[in-house]
Amino acid sequence: MRPTVNDLTLGQRLYERLEAFARHSEDEGKLTRTFLSGAHKAAADELAGWMRAAGMKVETDAIGNVVGRYEATTSGAPCLMLGSHIDTVRDAGKYDGNMGVLAALACVEAFHQAGDRFPFAIEVVAFGDEEGVRFPVTLSGSRAIAGSFDTTTLSLRDKDGISLREALVAFGCDPARIGQIARKREQILAFVELHIEQGPVLEDEGLAVGAVTAINGASRLSVEVKGVANHAGTVPMHLRRDALAAAAEMMLAVEARGRAEAELVATVGRVDVMPGAINVIPGLVRFTMDVRSPSDAARRRAVADIDRRIAEIAQARGVESAITLTHEAAACRCAPELVEAIGGAIARAGLAVKRLPSGAGHDAMAFSRLCPVGMIFVRCEKGISHNPAEAITIEDADISMRVLMDFIKNFDAEKPSPPFRGERVG
Amino acid sequence: MRPTVNDLTLGQRLYERLEAFARHSEDEGKLTRTFLSGAHKAAADELAGWMRAAGMKVETDAIGNVVGRYEATTSGAPCLMLGSHIDTVRDAGKYDGNMGVLAALACVEAFHQAGDRFPFAIEVVAFGDEEGVRFPVTLSGSRAIAGSFDTTTLSLRDKDGISLREALVAFGCDPARIGQIARKREQILAFVELHIEQGPVLEDEGLAVGAVTAINGASRLSVEVKGVANHAGTVPMHLRRDALAAAAEMMLAVEARGRAEAELVATVGRVDVMPGAINVIPGLVRFTMDVRSPSDAARRRAVADIDRRIAEIAQARGVESAITLTHEAAACRCAPELVEAIGGAIARAGLAVKRLPSGAGHDAMAFSRLCPVGMIFVRCEKGISHNPAEAITIEDADISMRVLMDFIKNFDAEKPSPPFRGERVG
Repeated sequence: MRPTVNDLTLGQRLYERLEAFARHSEDEGKLTRTFLSGAHKAAADELAGWMRAAGMKVETDAIGNVVGRYEATTSGAPCLMLGSHIDTVRDAGKYDGNMGVLAALACVEAFHQAGDRFPFAIEVVAFGDEEGVRFPVTLSGSRAIAGSFDTTTLSLRDKDGISLREALVAFGCDPARIGQIARKREQILAFVELHIEQGPVLEDEGLAVGAVTAINGASRLSVEVKGVANHAGTVPMHLRRDALAAAAEMMLAVEARGRAEAELVATVGRVDVMPGAINVIPGLVRFTMDVRSPSDAARRRAVADIDRRIAEIAQARGVESAITLTHEAAACRCAPELVEAIGGAIARAGLAVKRLPSGAGHDAMAFSRLCPVGMIFVRCEKGISHNPAEAITIEDADISMRVLMDFIKNFDAEKPSPPFRGERVG
Repeated sequence: MRPTVNDLTLGQRLYERLEAFARHSEDEGKLTRTFLSGAHKAAADELAGWMRAAGMKVETDAIGNVVGRYEATTSGAPCLMLGSHIDTVRDAGKYDGNMGVLAALACVEAFHQAGDRFPFAIEVVAFGDEEGVRFPVTLSGSRAIAGSFDTTTLSLRDKDGISLREALVAFGCDPARIGQIARKREQILAFVELHIEQGPVLEDEGLAVGAVTAINGASRLSVEVKGVANHAGTVPMHLRRDALAAAAEMMLAVEARGRAEAELVATVGRVDVMPGAINVIPGLVRFTMDVRSPSDAARRRAVADIDRRIAEIAQARGVESAITLTHEAAACRCAPELVEAIGGAIARAGLAVKRLPSGAGHDAMAFSRLCPVGMIFVRCEKGISHNPAEAITIEDADISMRVLMDFIKNFDAEKPSPPFRGERVG
């Protein structure tokens, strides 16, 4: 039951607005909109105007989030919070973050126009710092609302020496009030974020949208392999301790372990070879590993297996290996009743219901300890993101709008569930 | 039948002279002696003095070689040419090159002292440019004497903009006379070079010296693997075209092919991974290959096999691969009668005779189309070279002296053989 061309009004309007909104950029000829920049300010101001026109009460809060509230039938009722971020990476695409904010706004516009009002309020939030490009911190906006903002990060500085605190003041915010914007559990029924997939799964399966089951947890590791550097001509193969040949075997072991389990991914992204000369047997290799899974237990098992394989390979080859865990983040599971509800909306749109994990991080993570979270993924061309080639179709934008509106209309405010606390990282 | 401590006079003297000779350096606190530098001049001058004191006629020729001639019983007889180079890499060891020159000189000193003279002259040559550090050319000195010097290289410049021609003039040479120093076939009975092994084979087998069978030919190749760069979190394993995982499989194939055949070596020394971020699946990898063998046919077979394997791996993984041959040098076989004669001298010293190829290049290569060439390898600690940690023992220096002297004394001037012309590179 795909919509015919004449039915694409909602998608067309969203698509065009995303196009127009992308003009708010610090860089000429490409989209770069970092946290608390002039482009961020201009985007926030335009968005606030659109929100007001859609019947919402709007404020830019103490951390620079634009928060619009579409009141419930009963004033002051708890809200269904929707949204995403409006900051971007450098030379970004137009959809990452922005689509979730403008799609939510467009839903409210439609409700406002139709005079629809619900037993719950709808709040649309445009977070200002998901990408972490300007300051060495991320999710500042969503964390502040979720009550987990770390105030010590206010003294972090950007590359020009401006602190986060100073940038907030220049943006018109009062950093002293950040603590006051934290919501209480009972004020938010759920947080739901629509976002482009940034991966190829939906495209591969020929689907416009999908229901996200979890935001994957991640382990990042650094591996060092020490062999003996030597002359590539003078050392027979059996007398070598080639750090790179050992590392190559380890990299294939990483890939094999990633392949061995559904929804697990394992990647070697960076390799440094020393001395790195055409005629010298490598003596030292460092490479990185990135392992992700919707299940923290599965991820930890995979890391342990890879660790063991690397040690075995090193021993068999007479080289030394050392593995360091450089970063670890627990998975954030979406609330099962929200996955269900989103799936229902997708099914009512006449589409197959695909459930899939998110490999990338999102603002929704910040809410997972406060309230139930859900996510809707939208197909993007070739899975490309963080790139000006990021692309969606008007048709998919339209389906996204229908699914999100349907989800909101059918949202059951009476069926709250406890927030998922995630698996503890040991 | 190892010599006792009291017998080490020759080795001790050579060892100490190598130590003292290493003071001729352009860099304070380490040994760097590039072609036609002030340090090269000082070393050449000191060497010329020692040669004269050993009863030799000495000249510094038009390309900066120091050439000492110890006359035959009949004046003007053809010579047995010995020697190696006295230029070094930056921050070099004391033995690479220098040992072959000073060992040959020490032999002549001993003959001069004892009044020994032979039916052939002995010429000791200290070549000035084997390492190719200063100008983008190598073997200038040995090629000039062998008659294969390329005069167009005279206009090549060092990093300070000084041409080879200018540097020669400043050194006191007359570049216009380079053509005249080329020897005729009938003037040189053989060229024999003693050199540290620069590899671990002799040490691994517990031997002080060995007879070189060939200087390996080499193929250098550059491999490019093109996959698709993407987010390390969002792309499932089965939808990836990971250029690095493919390259890792190819690197192991290179190693396996190197291992599959005796005396063949295959090395991946350098790898560049793009974009090279911890959270991005690599989209492009470039790596180098260095394949060497004493047999050109075996080397070419190995390169063809590796080429085929790389294409298979690329196809199986849905990535693109391209291989470029960046350098190729034919093997230089040592004259069988010289390998035999050197082996005889080693055996007479009471040692096991090890025949081995040279994985590194040497001045001897330049002579292989003019006259029979032979090489004696000397064990060096851990095979380390091009490094201040380069080390030999006094005992091994002593054995080297005995073997070289014995070889010269038993050299058969009446048994000339045609020069080995090498296999043509197709």
